Amino acid sequence: MCPSKVADGEQRGWIVPIGGAEDKELDMRVLRRFFELCGGKGADIAVIPTASKLVETGDRYEQLFADMGAANVSVLDFDTRRDAHERNRVAAIEQADGIFITGGNQLRLSTILGGTPIAQAIRASNARGIPVGGTSAGAGILSEHMIAGGDSDNGTPHANSVRLAPGLGLTNRVVIDQHFRQRDRLGRLLAALAYNPFAIGLGVDEDTAALLGPDNVIEVEGSGAVTVIDADDLQFSSMAQVSGDAPVCMLGVQIHILTAGASFNLGTRKASAGSLSPVKE
Amino acid sequence: MCPSKVADGEQRGWIVPIGGAEDKELDMRVLRRFFELCGGKGADIAVIPTASKLVETGDRYEQLFADMGAANVSVLDFDTRRDAHERNRVAAIEQADGIFITGGNQLRLSTILGGTPIAQAIRASNARGIPVGGTSAGAGILSEHMIAGGDSDNGTPHANSVRLAPGLGLTNRVVIDQHFRQRDRLGRLLAALAYNPFAIGLGVDEDTAALLGPDNVIEVEGSGAVTVIDADDLQFSSMAQVSGDAPVCMLGVQIHILTAGASFNLGTRKASAGSLSPVKE
Repeated sequence: MCPSKVADGEQRGWIVPIGGAEDKELDMRVLRRFFELCGGKGADIAVIPTASKLVETGDRYEQLFADMGAANVSVLDFDTRRDAHERNRVAAIEQADGIFITGGNQLRLSTILGGTPIAQAIRASNARGIPVGGTSAGAGILSEHMIAGGDSDNGTPHANSVRLAPGLGLTNRVVIDQHFRQRDRLGRLLAALAYNPFAIGLGVDEDTAALLGPDNVIEVEGSGAVTVIDADDLQFSSMAQVSGDAPVCMLGVQIHILTAGASFNLGTRKASAGSLSPVKE
Repeated sequence: MCPSKVADGEQRGWIVPIGGAEDKELDMRVLRRFFELCGGKGADIAVIPTASKLVETGDRYEQLFADMGAANVSVLDFDTRRDAHERNRVAAIEQADGIFITGGNQLRLSTILGGTPIAQAIRASNARGIPVGGTSAGAGILSEHMIAGGDSDNGTPHANSVRLAPGLGLTNRVVIDQHFRQRDRLGRLLAALAYNPFAIGLGVDEDTAALLGPDNVIEVEGSGAVTVIDADDLQFSSMAQVSGDAPVCMLGVQIHILTAGASFNLGTRKASAGSLSPVKE
């Protein structure tokens, strides 16, 4: 689904995919950064734990954001598509200063929320400036093309590496993969781009967030890295010729490993060392 | 150690790093290709099983090359540095049409053979046109800078990802890593280049060979891929600023995933789809 149109004079809210397993006990850099983007103390946060089957998932984030100083945290669980039509829940999304989607199974998110008034409300909120974050499965769902499944532990792309499905579509500029370094997902993210190189691949490590600003610059927060894969100048892909477990030939892929302080501009497709650079850029 | 000088009017022999676990029972594409480069039927092959502690390793390759039609296969084991000074063994290297180094532990190879007359003979033979191949540890040892150890299962480079050591030095243009996709070694190969981006990283999958021709064009044989990492245009590396498990920021790395049919020119640093291309290049 294409991103919602941003009205004249307004700007899109931050989109914050997190690679999963973010620190919830020590300095909580990643979650604090998300909370600050939502306005910090006094903010109203909506938490969507639908991806998870664990009943305690929502409560955990409710407590975390309350401890940071949220004025209100609404935990909105959806077990059926009918739930995702309920007026009160849609209103809770509409009034939130920030929306957070937990981890679990991204197909639970897409099958239950896809095309419902809740999905529409999330998209509309983001289009008028509200930050939307998600961790693990909640990160994957944020973009137009979502990685629904595929191979982990495989650095080389092959024909069957990845299955794509439509996501929430807050942005169509990136394809997101999570637990990136921990689960060796380079191959499947490369394979996703081999189909159609128009998007940028974002491989987000655990305890790390890629922060897509309204200006389309990606910043990084957390202890890991965000691997940016730019296939815009792809010279050749054999994806159309191979099948099964055969490796895919891909020539001319550019990658950037961003750590906190560095950034990548989706508009110009240029990376910057930012505060990491010993010389002012 | 720098590559041996190639005499006027001669050309260097092929250098053939294999990613390990090459097929030894079915069509044996990788080993057959190496054997053909050595002249095929009637060739004299020297096998160095020193990296392996298994006594049967040398015999296995002796049988394989004999079955392919070798006129002679000399299995030269070296248990001590003194063995690597023995005249008869040096002579066997000098008269071979091809030299093959098996897998095992690359530090056994470098500690036992490094700087000995055997190492000198291998270097001299390659400089006058004799192909030298190696699988797994035997692949890593071929270049000037060898990956002695480091992290597997980690796609993101970090400060302690890799330990380098001097190798045989048949070429200084590449740093080789093996079992590449099977053991998720992108991070450590990137880290090796983050220290000093002058070389090209070659990540060789299992049952796959990177074939470095006398013309410095790399071809591919086998069922997997060779990941070529070109950090020549590296815009920034934070390797000097990080330590321990901290991820390394690297901006502007180009990668090519080559499968059989594709090639990469080390001189021009250009990849080509070769026979995979639907249009003639």
